[in-house]
Amino acid sequence: MKILVLHGPNLNLLGARDPEVYGNLTLKEIDSRIRAHAKKRGAAVVIHQSNAEGGIIDAIHRAGRKGSAKTCDAIVINPGAYTHYSIAIRDAIQAVGLPTVEVHLSNIYAREDFRHRSVVAPVCRGQIVGLGHTGYLFAIDAAISLVKGE
Amino acid sequence: MKILVLHGPNLNLLGARDPEVYGNLTLKEIDSRIRAHAKKRGAAVVIHQSNAEGGIIDAIHRAGRKGSAKTCDAIVINPGAYTHYSIAIRDAIQAVGLPTVEVHLSNIYAREDFRHRSVVAPVCRGQIVGLGHTGYLFAIDAAISLVKGE
Amino acid sequence: MKILVLHGPNLNLLGARDPEVYGNLTLKEIDSRIRAHAKKRGAAVVIHQSNAEGGIIDAIHRAGRKGSAKTCDAIVINPGAYTHYSIAIRDAIQAVGLPTVEVHLSNIYAREDFRHRSVVAPVCRGQIVGLGHTGYLFAIDAAISLVKGE
Amino acid sequence: MKILVLHGPNLNLLGARDPEVYGNLTLKEIDSRIRAHAKKRGAAVVIHQSNAEGGIIDAIHRAGRKGSAKTCDAIVINPGAYTHYSIAIRDAIQAVGLPTVEVHLSNIYAREDFRHRSVVAPVCRGQIVGLGHTGYLFAIDAAISLVKGE
Amino acid sequence: MKILVLHGPNLNLLGARDPEVYGNLTLKEIDSRIRAHAKKRGAAVVIHQSNAEGGIIDAIHRAGRKGSAKTCDAIVINPGAYTHYSIAIRDAIQAVGLPTVEVHLSNIYAREDFRHRSVVAPVCRGQIVGLGHTGYLFAIDAAISLVKGE
Amino acid sequence: MKILVLHGPNLNLLGARDPEVYGNLTLKEIDSRIRAHAKKRGAAVVIHQSNAEGGIIDAIHRAGRKGSAKTCDAIVINPGAYTHYSIAIRDAIQAVGLPTVEVHLSNIYAREDFRHRSVVAPVCRGQIVGLGHTGYLFAIDAAISLVKGE
Amino acid sequence: MKILVLHGPNLNLLGARDPEVYGNLTLKEIDSRIRAHAKKRGAAVVIHQSNAEGGIIDAIHRAGRKGSAKTCDAIVINPGAYTHYSIAIRDAIQAVGLPTVEVHLSNIYAREDFRHRSVVAPVCRGQIVGLGHTGYLFAIDAAISLVKGE
Amino acid sequence: MKILVLHGPNLNLLGARDPEVYGNLTLKEIDSRIRAHAKKRGAAVVIHQSNAEGGIIDAIHRAGRKGSAKTCDAIVINPGAYTHYSIAIRDAIQAVGLPTVEVHLSNIYAREDFRHRSVVAPVCRGQIVGLGHTGYLFAIDAAISLVKGE
Amino acid sequence: MKILVLHGPNLNLLGARDPEVYGNLTLKEIDSRIRAHAKKRGAAVVIHQSNAEGGIIDAIHRAGRKGSAKTCDAIVINPGAYTHYSIAIRDAIQAVGLPTVEVHLSNIYAREDFRHRSVVAPVCRGQIVGLGHTGYLFAIDAAISLVKGE
Amino acid sequence: MKILVLHGPNLNLLGARDPEVYGNLTLKEIDSRIRAHAKKRGAAVVIHQSNAEGGIIDAIHRAGRKGSAKTCDAIVINPGAYTHYSIAIRDAIQAVGLPTVEVHLSNIYAREDFRHRSVVAPVCRGQIVGLGHTGYLFAIDAAISLVKGE
Amino acid sequence: MKILVLHGPNLNLLGARDPEVYGNLTLKEIDSRIRAHAKKRGAAVVIHQSNAEGGIIDAIHRAGRKGSAKTCDAIVINPGAYTHYSIAIRDAIQAVGLPTVEVHLSNIYAREDFRHRSVVAPVCRGQIVGLGHTGYLFAIDAAISLVKGE
Amino acid sequence: MKILVLHGPNLNLLGARDPEVYGNLTLKEIDSRIRAHAKKRGAAVVIHQSNAEGGIIDAIHRAGRKGSAKTCDAIVINPGAYTHYSIAIRDAIQAVGLPTVEVHLSNIYAREDFRHRSVVAPVCRGQIVGLGHTGYLFAIDAAISLVKGE
Repeated sequence: MKILVLHGPNLNLLGARDPEVYGNLTLKEIDSRIRAHAKKRGAAVVIHQSNAEGGIIDAIHRAGRKGSAKTCDAIVINPGAYTHYSIAIRDAIQAVGLPTVEVHLSNIYAREDFRHRSVVAPVCRGQIVGLGHTGYLFAIDAAISLVKGE
Repeated sequence: MKILVLHGPNLNLLGARDPEVYGNLTLKEIDSRIRAHAKKRGAAVVIHQSNAEGGIIDAIHRAGRKGSAKTCDAIVINPGAYTHYSIAIRDAIQAVGLPTVEVHLSNIYAREDFRHRSVVAPVCRGQIVGLGHTGYLFAIDAAISLVKGE
Repeated sequence: MKILVLHGPNLNLLGARDPEVYGNLTLKEIDSRIRAHAKKRGAAVVIHQSNAEGGIIDAIHRAGRKGSAKTCDAIVINPGAYTHYSIAIRDAIQAVGLPTVEVHLSNIYAREDFRHRSVVAPVCRGQIVGLGHTGYLFAIDAAISLVKGE
Repeated sequence: MKILVLHGPNLNLLGARDPEVYGNLTLKEIDSRIRAHAKKRGAAVVIHQSNAEGGIIDAIHRAGRKGSAKTCDAIVINPGAYTHYSIAIRDAIQAVGLPTVEVHLSNIYAREDFRHRSVVAPVCRGQIVGLGHTGYLFAIDAAISLVKGE
Repeated sequence: MKILVLHGPNLNLLGARDPEVYGNLTLKEIDSRIRAHAKKRGAAVVIHQSNAEGGIIDAIHRAGRKGSAKTCDAIVINPGAYTHYSIAIRDAIQAVGLPTVEVHLSNIYAREDFRHRSVVAPVCRGQIVGLGHTGYLFAIDAAISLVKGE
Repeated sequence: MKILVLHGPNLNLLGARDPEVYGNLTLKEIDSRIRAHAKKRGAAVVIHQSNAEGGIIDAIHRAGRKGSAKTCDAIVINPGAYTHYSIAIRDAIQAVGLPTVEVHLSNIYAREDFRHRSVVAPVCRGQIVGLGHTGYLFAIDAAISLVKGE
Repeated sequence: MKILVLHGPNLNLLGARDPEVYGNLTLKEIDSRIRAHAKKRGAAVVIHQSNAEGGIIDAIHRAGRKGSAKTCDAIVINPGAYTHYSIAIRDAIQAVGLPTVEVHLSNIYAREDFRHRSVVAPVCRGQIVGLGHTGYLFAIDAAISLVKGE
Repeated sequence: MKILVLHGPNLNLLGARDPEVYGNLTLKEIDSRIRAHAKKRGAAVVIHQSNAEGGIIDAIHRAGRKGSAKTCDAIVINPGAYTHYSIAIRDAIQAVGLPTVEVHLSNIYAREDFRHRSVVAPVCRGQIVGLGHTGYLFAIDAAISLVKGE
Repeated sequence: MKILVLHGPNLNLLGARDPEVYGNLTLKEIDSRIRAHAKKRGAAVVIHQSNAEGGIIDAIHRAGRKGSAKTCDAIVINPGAYTHYSIAIRDAIQAVGLPTVEVHLSNIYAREDFRHRSVVAPVCRGQIVGLGHTGYLFAIDAAISLVKGE
Repeated sequence: MKILVLHGPNLNLLGARDPEVYGNLTLKEIDSRIRAHAKKRGAAVVIHQSNAEGGIIDAIHRAGRKGSAKTCDAIVINPGAYTHYSIAIRDAIQAVGLPTVEVHLSNIYAREDFRHRSVVAPVCRGQIVGLGHTGYLFAIDAAISLVKGE
Repeated sequence: MKILVLHGPNLNLLGARDPEVYGNLTLKEIDSRIRAHAKKRGAAVVIHQSNAEGGIIDAIHRAGRKGSAKTCDAIVINPGAYTHYSIAIRDAIQAVGLPTVEVHLSNIYAREDFRHRSVVAPVCRGQIVGLGHTGYLFAIDAAISLVKGE
Repeated sequence: MKILVLHGPNLNLLGARDPEVYGNLTLKEIDSRIRAHAKKRGAAVVIHQSNAEGGIIDAIHRAGRKGSAKTCDAIVINPGAYTHYSIAIRDAIQAVGLPTVEVHLSNIYAREDFRHRSVVAPVCRGQIVGLGHTGYLFAIDAAISLVKGE
């Protein structure tokens, strides 16, 4: 089983960017923990970070296409700021048809009003917010369950 | 460590109520899994279900009061329909000051518009939606981490 | 055939409360007429009044549960002020799955703006407003038809 | 006693149009039942269907004019789609001053958002929705009571 | 194959009315081109213009009724100003169930805000705007394809 | 000089309809005063009342067409309830291009919210509200001035 | 009979300011015509212009006070930009209780959105817009009628 | 004279809950001051706290019913979070018809947006906010005056 | 201790203006009671009324300036209609930094919608509404407490 | 004559993605039909697909620049999900000044609310929606006419 | 060349008022810098501060009137809180027709929502915000360029 | 000192694109002036233009990262159309923590409604709009001051 883990814009700055909001770990460190956790659960991960909306869409397309050979079985995505307006990413998730779990490090519902709406959430299976990098690990577990049809 | 698990209105009907939305497990079965999971993690749970807004507030108050002896260390809450309008429950969570994780069985962001807003979310530490009863188990893990200050 | 008749908050004050809006009959008198009317139609009624949202939900649950033995065949409900915000009562009606008719004594569409929206109406089969206590009698008739599948 | 029964636009297609929403009876069949029911209650009915807003207004004017001889004692109206925007029909009802009951075959509150608002309701005495053609019969009963001042 | 072409209010003034918005052709000249084009495609057209909402609904009803003999196979409609508020015309299109294409001479999305919303569009199969009288010819082609099930 | 005076829906009930809002004069009496006043000013009037939106549009078209022979030089219109939603009447006024003055007997800005917006006003030259039937006489004077280009 | 004529902010610039919107006459010239017209009608006028909200309120107070000797019998007011937000001027008009007619030189309903709402209109008896300085003369006539109780 | 003093949800946590917002006094201490103050003014008080909406409504009903023997002469109420959505409490206050004064310890208008609206205020005689527990004492004074008709 | 008491626009008309809303006392009589009450409490008052927004701001500035000698210790203000839109008065109160209590004679929350919002309230310490002239006396008491730091 | 045909995000998945919404043809197949159709009409096409907003803007810039040598004469664009928010693409279309026709395969007005608004439409000459891949062919025809100035 | 520099309400308190928002300089010190800077650029300045809306309008009128002798060539204005609602000041700027630059010391877009809208901005040539008193100096430079037509 | 100057989408078309809105200078010419001006002030500039949201974010990241070596000291940015919706660019600016000045060539507040809101402004230090290319020069000056802490 292979899971695509997608980090959206500005997440490459983690560790440096507002640690009181996003935690002290760098993206590299989080990625190590994700890899280790997935391995323990018997799953492989492909991890990708992009600041570009089109880059994120391309990565989703590469993961799988309905009706043709897919390269991944599920998606774990933190769409960063694109969460709030990228209908194009939403459409990409819906188009490839892979079970997808949305993750946010911080509690987006406790921040500015414009962060309270996720245009991506309705096409995801679940959403985990505000639990820091642990949220990614829960999402890996959830993605595995969804693929297994548990 | 002791965690209060609170189920809001209509959750006592689980198993019977729209299984395609909420799953096939009864609340009793979910509670068993929660208890087993918490035990494995070394934590005790107090579980309470109420259809009454005031009953939920009373349970939160019993769990802990800022500045006085508390009986629980954290809260895992699925406020059911009260999620969307009970400022009184929100105030109760904020008043007792215990770390709280909000859980929803279904993906509330993929349902009717009025279910997209949680008035409780801003005073919780995190939110887990759409992952079925597994969401409660993740929430137990998260609550333990929050209490331990991990 | 048994029909649950539910009166929401403040309806226990009928007769005393603004007679030009709600009529001169007390709730007791209205209940007598409902009972007599149902009897004439060959149906039994269980009548309950509660000022508590949780109390109303509990009564709905007692009336019936999907997939288990139910105690009533239909519901006639005047949710009073809860009409306008109780998503919890809405969820209860939807969860038990009994055919339900909503009644209002006064014409809520001719009163304050906030009374124009019923969050309960979309999960009921029909709504009767503004026809005084006669609305309950029509609702009994309608409930009987719905149960009989006419 | 004479009651004007007014059917608005597209109701002439009943029976053919979406039976799962509007039922299987044709308008002709419904009108027969209305006539029979009214007769049983000792009232006469004048029934009119029009797809034109102006036609409906004219019919209301013919029914009665404040301060002059009226030809009907009450109105039962299903304004169809005009329900949601015809302030002109609303003004006509208010202007002639006859007690009026609004009827809808389907539960307009369980359909598209734009069907949730009736601009006509505030000048009617009551509203009956979602109870199929039986709603018209209840409305006849209600209209008779209103005229009798019961 | 026969197609109903319906022109809404004020379209009878074409040629005279703001030529920079609506073009120089009179409605008569446009109708000739529509007839010639349809003929070339092997289809007959019935063309009707009305300033009355009820008149447009009547014409749609004459074109066809679900479940009974229909006189036309498809509709091409420019509802003029009724586009923006006539739920009654929308209901008529939906009720007769014929494949319908909506046409607007001018680009309604480049004009006043209130012209940006078509209440009719959701029940049509497609919409062609801003392409002048050629839009009608495209719509004839599209209607033929829809009837043929291409 | 000839002026079209147009009365919209329900104005034929004047005198009978809510005299405290609309005054005691019947439409016939108002029309006499309009005719006398216009005559004194050296202008002729054509007066028309219609409850139908399409009928009002037809009357406006008859009054004049841009670029062709017109039969009237200006319009005085009280669109009644259509004021608030008839974009079709608005388009008709704009299409014929005659100077138009809007009149309302009552002060629409002191009544229900939905009466505060006139969709017709932006294409009229001026608006006179709340001055009873005298408003028509001022409008006649204003129309004459507009035609004379004063 | 004495009528207060009040000009609001920026009206002292008339003649110089956007003549295509407000006309070519200076305020002085308009005032002469108002005086001449009132004289012809047998009424005296007091004319005041102020750019200050407080100044306009003071002038209204001087004109009359409910329950005490008043110095004027009616008010004709063009509140300029204050039309759209000065609840204080609205309160002043309502407090003194004199019949008041609102005038606007330009058609405020054909201009920017924020000019479409008059907070003053609901406490005036009538409103005349878009008829240039003639609007003031009509307003004088209307004020005289209102005082005379015609 | 007897006054009902009603404390809404979470007020039982006073002293412990955010003292910088709500002050240092416990509810018990505040109640002592209220009792002492009322006594000095010659009035008795009945004090009740409830976290349940239904409980608050029941208490209001016990205080008095229109047209029957009442047990209290006035109400002083701090509805807590129910202030912002409990139309049921509003209806209860209106139904019993006792003069009522609304109190809030903190300045609700300086807090979150959703705390700026009180659905209860329109049926109270007055509102006192932001003055800490002293607000209750002023409210007692005001209630006494209202009962005395001063 | 010295307290500035500020009355906003139209309050000089008190006694004459709608006594059923504002009471029968003139502003002069209210001012006497305020002076007497303050004296009894050991405080002096400076009382000022102005219909001008700028005049009210100037008075606030004279009362005190942050960081320089102030002439008053607290402010009691009834901003009248400016309550609802004067951000300039709000800024003045915030800028001088004196503890301020807002007073309204009538219950602004039971009147027109536009009176429900106070732009001034968020920078005041408390608000007293609907208690007539007694509200001023409570406000004096509250201001004294605030200055004393009680 | 050369026409740029631009496909926005996720259109590269056509055929695989929700065929009931978008049809069975792959983008490659649609492109063949577009090329063949254009050839028949004597026009050449440049076809480009991009998931990146910036990529689409670059392609538009390459097509032509106002006031300098252009490489295309017109644009046919299906902006996919960017339709609903990309003001940057809108600005690009407006900046290059080439006649542009907007195409959508599905009827965006019959789908989710957020798909009802096109921020691009106001700067296009026309829009064709809901007619499947045939819409592109109509758009090619329309673009040719626009360039020829027909 | 002469430039009017206008300071709106509460700016006379600068230095004392929230230095972290507005800086430490008093208005007097800022005015000295403005004068020195303008002199260096070869321009004279007239500086005026007023807390009154009418006072600001009067100052704008004195600066220049379209079509008559003007006393200034450009305006630099910080309208303070009037920025957000004074349509009267907006009209004054538009009426005199002098090139105008709007300045704000603080970043109004990073403060309360109601400070994000400037009703004055659309009639100014440019706006400089958040750059402290330096903003005035830039504005002087910009005003000089605008007058010179650079 | 080094300053990043960032030009957003479509700015590469300057000179060709609507010169009456954006001026006659090409971006190349503006860049020369920016370089010359910065040099005179003793600062170096890095200038970058991109039509891609991700490209702009990447450039911001390259300029500096909180807590690590940065390559620039400040940012001057004209985000073009992204101004109005790119929360991702907003987050990038906030994340790198460099003082940033926002520039717009045209007065965005005098254009379409959707251009009135900048989602980027709240995280910038200041904003300069409507002053053409000179705005960039002022922004360079402001950026230098901000870095120097003046």
